[in-house]
Amino acid sequence: MPHQAQVNAERLLKRLDDFAAIGATPAGGVNRQALSVKDREARRLLAELALARGFQVFLDPIANLFVRRDGKRGDLPPFLIGSHLDSQPTGGRFDGALGTLAAFEVLESMEDAGIETEAPLEVVAWTNEEGSHFSPGCMGSMAFSLKAIPAEWNDLRASNGDIFSQELHATLEALSEAQMRPLGFPVAGYLELHIEQGPSLERENIPVGIVYGIQGTRWLDITITGQASHAGTTALAFRRDPMTAAVAALKRLFDTVMPQDERARFTVGRFAVDPGSVNAVPASVTFTVDLRHPDTETLDALEALIEKTCADAAASVRCEAQSRRFFDMPPATFPEELLACLDRAAERQGLTTTRMLSGAFHDALFVNRVAPAAMIFVPCRDGLSHNEAEYVEPSHSIAGARMLLASTLEALASLGSK
Amino acid sequence: MPHQAQVNAERLLKRLDDFAAIGATPAGGVNRQALSVKDREARRLLAELALARGFQVFLDPIANLFVRRDGKRGDLPPFLIGSHLDSQPTGGRFDGALGTLAAFEVLESMEDAGIETEAPLEVVAWTNEEGSHFSPGCMGSMAFSLKAIPAEWNDLRASNGDIFSQELHATLEALSEAQMRPLGFPVAGYLELHIEQGPSLERENIPVGIVYGIQGTRWLDITITGQASHAGTTALAFRRDPMTAAVAALKRLFDTVMPQDERARFTVGRFAVDPGSVNAVPASVTFTVDLRHPDTETLDALEALIEKTCADAAASVRCEAQSRRFFDMPPATFPEELLACLDRAAERQGLTTTRMLSGAFHDALFVNRVAPAAMIFVPCRDGLSHNEAEYVEPSHSIAGARMLLASTLEALASLGSK
Repeated sequence: MPHQAQVNAERLLKRLDDFAAIGATPAGGVNRQALSVKDREARRLLAELALARGFQVFLDPIANLFVRRDGKRGDLPPFLIGSHLDSQPTGGRFDGALGTLAAFEVLESMEDAGIETEAPLEVVAWTNEEGSHFSPGCMGSMAFSLKAIPAEWNDLRASNGDIFSQELHATLEALSEAQMRPLGFPVAGYLELHIEQGPSLERENIPVGIVYGIQGTRWLDITITGQASHAGTTALAFRRDPMTAAVAALKRLFDTVMPQDERARFTVGRFAVDPGSVNAVPASVTFTVDLRHPDTETLDALEALIEKTCADAAASVRCEAQSRRFFDMPPATFPEELLACLDRAAERQGLTTTRMLSGAFHDALFVNRVAPAAMIFVPCRDGLSHNEAEYVEPSHSIAGARMLLASTLEALASLGSK
Repeated sequence: MPHQAQVNAERLLKRLDDFAAIGATPAGGVNRQALSVKDREARRLLAELALARGFQVFLDPIANLFVRRDGKRGDLPPFLIGSHLDSQPTGGRFDGALGTLAAFEVLESMEDAGIETEAPLEVVAWTNEEGSHFSPGCMGSMAFSLKAIPAEWNDLRASNGDIFSQELHATLEALSEAQMRPLGFPVAGYLELHIEQGPSLERENIPVGIVYGIQGTRWLDITITGQASHAGTTALAFRRDPMTAAVAALKRLFDTVMPQDERARFTVGRFAVDPGSVNAVPASVTFTVDLRHPDTETLDALEALIEKTCADAAASVRCEAQSRRFFDMPPATFPEELLACLDRAAERQGLTTTRMLSGAFHDALFVNRVAPAAMIFVPCRDGLSHNEAEYVEPSHSIAGARMLLASTLEALASLGSK
């Protein structure tokens, strides 16, 4: 019976075009920042399409939008599929929109085929995944997982002066036909289709990635302090050069952290020198480390290794190193039971897949804290995202939607009826 | 006969105090920038002291100031001793002034002792050694060695709007009793006493350094270009990270350039990253290299090594390196004949010395292009210079002046009578 439902490719591609027109930029991208007028317009279009098909529309207090197709048993918690509709200020057409619209296509194709499910199936569009208008990102899924809106968000302001609480209120008001429901109601599980935002699937020519977890991320600020001195008059023996310490430490870390663990990510994105004179041995250097790994214990071990390596390198040239962690996002590991559903779905669809980690955050990271969650990735051209030139081949969008449909049916059969 | 002349320690220390009062700063330093009103005041004081002792005073077109004590033979070119009277805006009391006033003390002590020399002996205060008011530095000695004022200097302006040609004119006018002479007249040789501006003499507890040369300096701007990518989603194999290339290249260079050649100086004083995001693999990194060595061929070889090391490190991670030389000051090697005079002078004075290189530029570098030149260094506290806290022990100033006197007599005997 589940095999009768079929993705309507033409309809999905038209929906992607229709939503890309809301907040379209001249360069072919999208500016549809969270809780903006354009975000409200996109929410309205989705709600209208939903109501036209006889689905129900709900909002929760953080304005997460839910489109519900009832199951045979109203007492079962719904299974969620979806993503987000907000974009970066110069964002692409697919980041978030593909996952949300493919989820809606799953609902429509099941409606087309008259498939009945035990549990209700709901499409969700989480509020403010991008975090570009109001920070942090993943507000909707974070509040959902916390079953509360963190108090400090009430005072948030955007850089253009917009007040978060006002814009949230206006967004809720703009969809008066939606029914209100509480934050963080019980759900059976969650699946999210998303573009990879990286190059691996495209380069390996694999149409579907099964995402088994999201890397934890830590940001470190490391300062090595020595003593400024004259580049010409100071012999090596008299130097306390923090640059040599930083270079020695980073060489060792670049040579070990990623080469010894293919799941680790170690990036130095900022590097500043004081006083920054051509002819002065620096007084201090400061650099950032973006450290990612799917395993918390390994993150702890790597952070300790980074601190020790910097301290040792600094001490060897009579400098001192200080490390400060200024961001910490724990990793998510998706449950094997749900991943097995994705494997079976891919097999039935004849889709080649690879199991992969997500290096970027997604709403699934937060939902996974309260319900089984997993993600499906499709390739995007050159790994490019957060960019107006972001592009996904139509065949990849369609394959992703087919994979999401098949996976949803597998998950409903496996989890939804428990 | 030469042994009868003796440095008058009290007089020298008083002169240092008198000149430190001209442009004195509240923090105990000196602000006596080249061609300024205070610089003219210092020149006037020196000229008055000179004329009071019966010496002659000369200026050349770049306002280099000469105080002449005649020798027995007016047909011989004079032997020069001196340094400069201008300072950094927040400079110290000894940088330049010690060498100039010790030279004048040599003239006075020889006058006191009634010593007759074959060749004339002249004190010189070179114009604008520091280059802080008008750039470049060492203008006076440079023009002297070129026998011309470079045409482009006529249009120079200071950051406060002062016009070089006007201030030069006013400085020449302010000393109307001086006799004018042409630029770059023949001289027998040049000796310059200066503070070390580095820590080695103080740390090794050696009162006098015999400077056998001045390092050549090259400044390089090196850019390594890769490809910006997401710190989380980009696996090692897909990265083209210019930071890893820079770190690998610099590690190799820090490990070889200075450790393998104690005369080499290799300093990275600036380092910039584009785009400079915590969570982005950089698109490019740019850093400067200050490279110094007393030998031009070695500078060539080291610059080639730096370029090759950066290019290789870049290529190994599919990046590209570009190197641009934006400053080039050739080295000076002082003639052994004059250095031998200094060795003999130190031996006669019972002064412990070490032969050393100067890492900083000095007027002697330019004079050495047209006549035998050499330098004498004395220790300064903590190697500190270009700083109002610059300090030289009175005993070191006096030892330096005695060394200058003895060396001048040795040099006059060896070179001046040729």
